[in-house]
Amino acid sequence: MNAERYLYTGSDKDPDLRTLPTDSKKDEVSKKEIIAAFEENVARIQELQDRFHADAREGIVFVIQALDAAGKDSLIKHVFSRMNHQGVRIENFKAPSAEELAHDYLWRIHKVMPRRGDIVVLNRSHYEDVVTVDVNDIWQKYHMPERTLNDSREDFFRKRYRQIRDYEEYLYENGYRVVKIFLNVSKDTQKDRFLERIERPEKNWKFNAGDLDDRAKFDAFLDRFSTVIRQTATDHSPWYALPADQKWYTRYLLSEIMIDTFEKCKSRYPEMTDEQKAEMERCKESLLNE
Amino acid sequence: MNAERYLYTGSDKDPDLRTLPTDSKKDEVSKKEIIAAFEENVARIQELQDRFHADAREGIVFVIQALDAAGKDSLIKHVFSRMNHQGVRIENFKAPSAEELAHDYLWRIHKVMPRRGDIVVLNRSHYEDVVTVDVNDIWQKYHMPERTLNDSREDFFRKRYRQIRDYEEYLYENGYRVVKIFLNVSKDTQKDRFLERIERPEKNWKFNAGDLDDRAKFDAFLDRFSTVIRQTATDHSPWYALPADQKWYTRYLLSEIMIDTFEKCKSRYPEMTDEQKAEMERCKESLLNE
Repeated sequence: MNAERYLYTGSDKDPDLRTLPTDSKKDEVSKKEIIAAFEENVARIQELQDRFHADAREGIVFVIQALDAAGKDSLIKHVFSRMNHQGVRIENFKAPSAEELAHDYLWRIHKVMPRRGDIVVLNRSHYEDVVTVDVNDIWQKYHMPERTLNDSREDFFRKRYRQIRDYEEYLYENGYRVVKIFLNVSKDTQKDRFLERIERPEKNWKFNAGDLDDRAKFDAFLDRFSTVIRQTATDHSPWYALPADQKWYTRYLLSEIMIDTFEKCKSRYPEMTDEQKAEMERCKESLLNE
Repeated sequence: MNAERYLYTGSDKDPDLRTLPTDSKKDEVSKKEIIAAFEENVARIQELQDRFHADAREGIVFVIQALDAAGKDSLIKHVFSRMNHQGVRIENFKAPSAEELAHDYLWRIHKVMPRRGDIVVLNRSHYEDVVTVDVNDIWQKYHMPERTLNDSREDFFRKRYRQIRDYEEYLYENGYRVVKIFLNVSKDTQKDRFLERIERPEKNWKFNAGDLDDRAKFDAFLDRFSTVIRQTATDHSPWYALPADQKWYTRYLLSEIMIDTFEKCKSRYPEMTDEQKAEMERCKESLLNE
């Protein structure tokens, strides 16, 4: 699997996103070949999804995280939209609502977990609760009891990381696979994409001035996401840090990851018992004699 | 607190429900005095609930578990219904629906968690997933991947107990208190109450013949609930095994537990800042001059 070099499972490598590739250069690939391979992968994914859905013993959660303009929405549009929509749901997580803030932070995530046999894509996720909450220094502003808010910053986030690991382990043990994707975009590419959003009227709506505030904290975000990968990548719930400067390459890598994830599920169409087969034969007779 | 002798926090005692009291005899109490004390407690609870709701830094989850005819419904009707209904929600968990079975077993529980400042009463709960699923031997009938179903019975439930402990610890760290009540009814009292349900037409609907199947496994259920208490009672999410043969006594003990739980929250009415106070004074002026 070509995405393997971008895989983190918690033991192998100690990732620093600032030094990891944001483009395809090192992989020495041809754009034309990659685009063709992507199309082949999509056909394979559709096949695998059908069997996965029929089997319904596992559910898959794809978490997509990134800095602004790394291409999350575009990736969802061009990859996940190629699947059978019956069986795939996209869930977007913005800044939490008053109702969400009145609950524990995993409440809004757990609520949208898929039925087994289905897939949910989290466009941002509970990882905002350890990244944005940390970088923007809002962790002590929760309306919560002292036993939580009196924790040191270190203890507060140490607990959150443990809670997230426990939660994802629980999901795995109960028939889910959580696969986490970080889109690693370079600061230069982000600048180009922001400028494009400003220049092109039909892209204006995607831009807001506040994006530049987060851009000013580019390194701090990369630093926190490096911690996230270090703290929460496991064999069963891995992270991938994908180069995101060329969208055609990111899409291809994601499609490889999807195939790999489906294959790990070893889905099979439900086997029919002899009785069920006999019943179907009777139904066939009845239909033919109508 | 008079309910303290029925409290389990995980370290002190090794409970065997078959040998624990099901009636008030040992406590040598007077029914008349207990009923009067209960009424006083209700008034106190209403006061505490108001402050708890205004404060809204904590949420409370009362889990009610028991064998049939131990008095769960009656307890909810006569105790929780005495609170301000705005802020208390009762959630009943029956045998899981197809939709619920297609998800992890904590999904239907987590979905109904209260906002902080509110209370949820779980009439049966995720504890059915380690008790009924074990006694009735349905744990291998789940439609789940082999990594789960190939576990030995021991490993399967060991993991579930760990998952439940992790989940309740997570809730505590995020501003919730989970307080778990087992209503310990004697086999004789259960028999009397079943007979009453059969004799009295307006109670017939509460009886079904299948209840006798569970009655035949009375000791097995007590054995599993003893394990539940051993495995999941903690300082922050304790179990109480309350005698349940006299409903007036159980209600009183529960009211004591509720007061104790509220008091642990140390709720306070939100403090007004000097600005807010000045603002209110201006509003008062404006109202008086209308």
